[in-house]
Amino acid sequence: VSGEHQRAGTHDRQGRVDGDLAEREARDQSRVDAVLDDFFRLAKRRAESVGYRYVDLWKVLERNTSGGKRFRPRMVFTTYTAVTTRAAFELLHTALIVHDDVIDRDFSRRGIPNVSGSYRDEATTAGIPTPTAEHRGMSAAVIAGDLALTGASRLLLQVPCDGPVQARLLDLLDEAVFVSAGGEMIDVELSLSDDLPTVDEILAMERAKTAVYSFEAPLQAGAVLAEAPEAVVRALGEFGREVGVAYQVVDDLLGVFGTQSDTGKTTLGDLREGKRTVLVAHAATTDDWFGIRPFIGKADLSEAEAEVVRGRLEACGARRFAEQLVEDHAARALGVLDGPDVGEALRDALAPLVQVVLERVR
Amino acid sequence: VSGEHQRAGTHDRQGRVDGDLAEREARDQSRVDAVLDDFFRLAKRRAESVGYRYVDLWKVLERNTSGGKRFRPRMVFTTYTAVTTRAAFELLHTALIVHDDVIDRDFSRRGIPNVSGSYRDEATTAGIPTPTAEHRGMSAAVIAGDLALTGASRLLLQVPCDGPVQARLLDLLDEAVFVSAGGEMIDVELSLSDDLPTVDEILAMERAKTAVYSFEAPLQAGAVLAEAPEAVVRALGEFGREVGVAYQVVDDLLGVFGTQSDTGKTTLGDLREGKRTVLVAHAATTDDWFGIRPFIGKADLSEAEAEVVRGRLEACGARRFAEQLVEDHAARALGVLDGPDVGEALRDALAPLVQVVLERVR
Repeated sequence: VSGEHQRAGTHDRQGRVDGDLAEREARDQSRVDAVLDDFFRLAKRRAESVGYRYVDLWKVLERNTSGGKRFRPRMVFTTYTAVTTRAAFELLHTALIVHDDVIDRDFSRRGIPNVSGSYRDEATTAGIPTPTAEHRGMSAAVIAGDLALTGASRLLLQVPCDGPVQARLLDLLDEAVFVSAGGEMIDVELSLSDDLPTVDEILAMERAKTAVYSFEAPLQAGAVLAEAPEAVVRALGEFGREVGVAYQVVDDLLGVFGTQSDTGKTTLGDLREGKRTVLVAHAATTDDWFGIRPFIGKADLSEAEAEVVRGRLEACGARRFAEQLVEDHAARALGVLDGPDVGEALRDALAPLVQVVLERVR
Repeated sequence: VSGEHQRAGTHDRQGRVDGDLAEREARDQSRVDAVLDDFFRLAKRRAESVGYRYVDLWKVLERNTSGGKRFRPRMVFTTYTAVTTRAAFELLHTALIVHDDVIDRDFSRRGIPNVSGSYRDEATTAGIPTPTAEHRGMSAAVIAGDLALTGASRLLLQVPCDGPVQARLLDLLDEAVFVSAGGEMIDVELSLSDDLPTVDEILAMERAKTAVYSFEAPLQAGAVLAEAPEAVVRALGEFGREVGVAYQVVDDLLGVFGTQSDTGKTTLGDLREGKRTVLVAHAATTDDWFGIRPFIGKADLSEAEAEVVRGRLEACGARRFAEQLVEDHAARALGVLDGPDVGEALRDALAPLVQVVLERVR
C-alpha cells in the first residue's frame, strides 16, 4: 500500500470507504505480486539456457518492477478483479519508466539505483571507468525495457477471457503504448526547444505520456473485463483522463513545492533540469517571468535559490493556477462519476481515488 | 531483391531454382511492403492526434523499416506465404536493430543515417550542439524501437488463422525477443570483459542475438502457419539455427575480409571497435596472437595496419578456421533437409538459401 493511500485511509470524510479500499487493495496487491513472481520465476529459468549474465538482467528487472507507487494498476481493480490484467499494466509501467530513465539519463528512481544504476554501479565497483560503466547501465536498461514491454502483452494474452474481450484488452494496451510513446517523444522535443511550451501543450504532453497508460487504459480494461456497456467504458476513459491529468499536475507541484519525504526525490531536481511543467509554462506568461527564468534549468541551483524561485512562482500566481487546474480536473472527474452512465457501486469505488490525488497537494 | 540474392540467381548449379526463387521473392516482397505500408499509414494517421512531432517519428521509423537486406523475413515465405507474418518479423528486425544501434552508439547503418542519425542530424543542422543533438537522436531511437517492437506483435495478432496457430506464432515471436535480448545483453558483457571469450561463447552469443529471430523463429512460423507436423517444425528450427550461425560467421569474415561494396560498410569498423568475433577468439588461441592483439580495438587503425592484421589472421589460421565453421554449419543445415522429416518440396525451397549464405564468402 502506497504512501498516498495510507494518508487517504486516515482522512476523515473518506475514512470508511478508504479503509475498505485499503484492505482490499492490500489483498489484491499480494495476488498481483504472485502473478508477477510467477512471470519472473519462469523468465529467470528460461534465461538460464541463454546464459547466466542474462539471468542477472532478469533479477534486476524484477527488482525494478516491485516497490513502485503501484498507483496505476490499482485502477483496474476497482472495477474488476483481473489480477493478470493488473500485472500486465504494472509491467507496462516498468517498461516505460525504465526507458524514460534511459532518455532522462537517470541512474536512480526514488533514491534507489534503477536498472541503469545497478549495472553502472556494479561496473564502477569492478574498476571500470565511469563513462563505460554508464554506457553498460544504459545498454542493460534498453534491453530490460524491451523485455518488460514484451512481458506486458505476454501477460495480457494469458488473461482467461473470450476472444473479443481479449482483443479489446490488447487494443487498450496497444493504444497505451502508442500514445505514451508519442507523449515521450513530444516531451523530448519540448525540452529541446528554446520556445517555452504553452500550458495546453504541457497538459496534452502529460496526458499522452502518462495519463493514458496509467489511468485511462487500465480503467477501461477493467470495464472491458467486466463486460460493461460501451457507455461505461467511454465514461471510465473520460474519468481516467481527468484524474490522470490532475495527477500529473500534482506531480509538477510536488516537484517544486513538495517535501523530499513526500515524494522520495529532491525538490530541486525539476528546477535544476529546467523541466517543462505547468508551473513554468504559466509563469512564463506573467510579468514576473524575467525574475524566474534565470533559475529554470540552472544545473547548480542552491536550496536558497530554490526558495527564491518558489516564492516567485507563488507571487506570480503559477502555484495557485496549477492548484486550480488540479481542482478543476478533479471536479470534472467526479462529474463523470455523477453522470448517467456510471452506477452507484462504481461511483463509490472510484470517487476515493480522486480524493487520493487531491490529498497529495492539500 | 538483395545483392546476395542476385548473385545466387546467377550461380550455375543452382541457377534455375534460384531464378524461380528470385522471381517469387520479388513478388512476395511487394506484398509484404503493402502490409507494412498500411501499417505505417494507419500509425501516421493515429499519430496526428497526439502531435505533429510524433508523426515525424513514425516517418523516420518507416524509412528505417524498408531498404534493409530483407534476408530474414524471406525465410517464412519459402514455407508458407503468410505476408502478414513476414511483415511482423520484418518489424521485429527493425526494432532490434534500432535498439542495437542505440547500444552501439551508431548513427548510421549501411552508410545511411538511422533513426538516431536522422534526429541528430536534423538537430545539428538547426544549430543544436552535438552532445544534445546526439542525445535527441538516441531518445528518438529508444522510443522508435519500442513502437516497432509493439508493432510486430500487433501485426502478428492480425494474421488470419486459428487460435492455436496464433498462440504458437505469438510464442515464437516471444521466444525470438526473449533470446535475442539475452544475446544482446551477453554481447554487451563480453565486449566489456578483459578476458577474450572462447569461440563457443561467441557462437552461442551470435546464435542467441541473431540466428533465433532471423532464421529459426521465422522458419518455424512458416511451418506452424502451414500446420506442418511437429517434427517438421522442429527440423526447420534446427535448419534455421545452422544456417543462422553460418550467416553470422560469414558476417564476422566479411567484417574484416569483405569489400565495402559487398557489405555496405567499412571493413575497418569491426577491427577498430575490437568486436568480439570468431576470428579474434580463434586467433587468441594461437601463438600469433601477440602480433594481432595490439590492433584489435585500435580506434585509429589505418588501412595499412588493417592489411597487416588481415595477413596475420590468415597466417594464424583464423580465417580458414572461420571458413571451415561456415562450411560445417552449412553442411549440417543441408543434412537436416536430407533427414526424414523434410519433404522434397521443402528441401528444394530451402537448399538454395544455404547456397546464398555460402556465396557470400566464396
